[in-house]
Amino acid sequence: MKKHFEMRFGGTGGQGMMLMGDVTAEAAGIKEGKEILLTKSYGPESRGGACRSELIIDDEKIAYPVVSEPDVVLAMSQKACDSYTGDLAAGGIIIIDSDLVKSVPQRGRSVFSIPITRIAKEVTGKEISANVVALGAVAVLADVLDEEAMKEAVIERFPAKFTEANVQAFEAGAAAAEELVSGQAKKYA
Amino acid sequence: MKKHFEMRFGGTGGQGMMLMGDVTAEAAGIKEGKEILLTKSYGPESRGGACRSELIIDDEKIAYPVVSEPDVVLAMSQKACDSYTGDLAAGGIIIIDSDLVKSVPQRGRSVFSIPITRIAKEVTGKEISANVVALGAVAVLADVLDEEAMKEAVIERFPAKFTEANVQAFEAGAAAAEELVSGQAKKYA
Repeated sequence: MKKHFEMRFGGTGGQGMMLMGDVTAEAAGIKEGKEILLTKSYGPESRGGACRSELIIDDEKIAYPVVSEPDVVLAMSQKACDSYTGDLAAGGIIIIDSDLVKSVPQRGRSVFSIPITRIAKEVTGKEISANVVALGAVAVLADVLDEEAMKEAVIERFPAKFTEANVQAFEAGAAAAEELVSGQAKKYA
Repeated sequence: MKKHFEMRFGGTGGQGMMLMGDVTAEAAGIKEGKEILLTKSYGPESRGGACRSELIIDDEKIAYPVVSEPDVVLAMSQKACDSYTGDLAAGGIIIIDSDLVKSVPQRGRSVFSIPITRIAKEVTGKEISANVVALGAVAVLADVLDEEAMKEAVIERFPAKFTEANVQAFEAGAAAAEELVSGQAKKYA
């Protein structure tokens, strides 16, 4: 497993990309005992424009707080895919919402194509759960993360009345990713 | 008012410094329409060790994502004050919890000394509200922020049952800061 791991969650304002950063940071930092640096950036156009959160996970103190070669990029919109995947690390992976991203600009990259928002709607009835579906997929595809710790962090983040729907969304995302992994090589480490 | 403004909220794990960053970012970014870059860093020792969140607020896109000369530093522990105030901007201010920070290392700085945690306990009965008291003080002392937008962001961040206590805590922090300001020069811009 890599000692220094960089992730970027990119999408459109309102898709919950900031919250994905928080939950993943919580899982890796508090539950797994890693060093964490989480960056969120947004502006007035964030509701509707491209926005992202970025996370560095390391076994040791993080000296340089900038994501420069992400190991995992999640793109929940075409614009996010166009803007945020150019600096992917060698051997890195891109996870896309296959209904929202129709073209992946970089050739020869490892792309995991999952209908994330559609799964959310099917499982919970709500598109807003797409980020929880994505968290399940990321938990499976980024081996630096522990699936159980991620699921716990999701549960703790929301009021109890949402637990059942969120667990279903998370597990559906994880299952979709597992299916792709078993069809491809092995889990990305 | 400065176009580029940097803030740092430093304390001990469990004091809610990460949440302060979230709420302030929400107020400035969503409600005020500024560009926002929020950084949170923590590690396994964060429960009990020094931890911080950092926020850059700008009228334009933020090119360099690192806080280098904070205009406002909040120090909720002696260790946070020792570690996080050395790079204060010229003309910047330090806000300390006067019961928790007994010595401010830099001389000649503008220091606002408020018994933040004690006020929280007096007003809401709970020390955990200290970060909301601090948000009220910061809203007054950092002129880049709008007090009403900050209060709204606080209210929205928590379930409705906490609204009354949080508004009281926020307003008590704002009042304590106002008192210092009226005794000192004018509001920091």
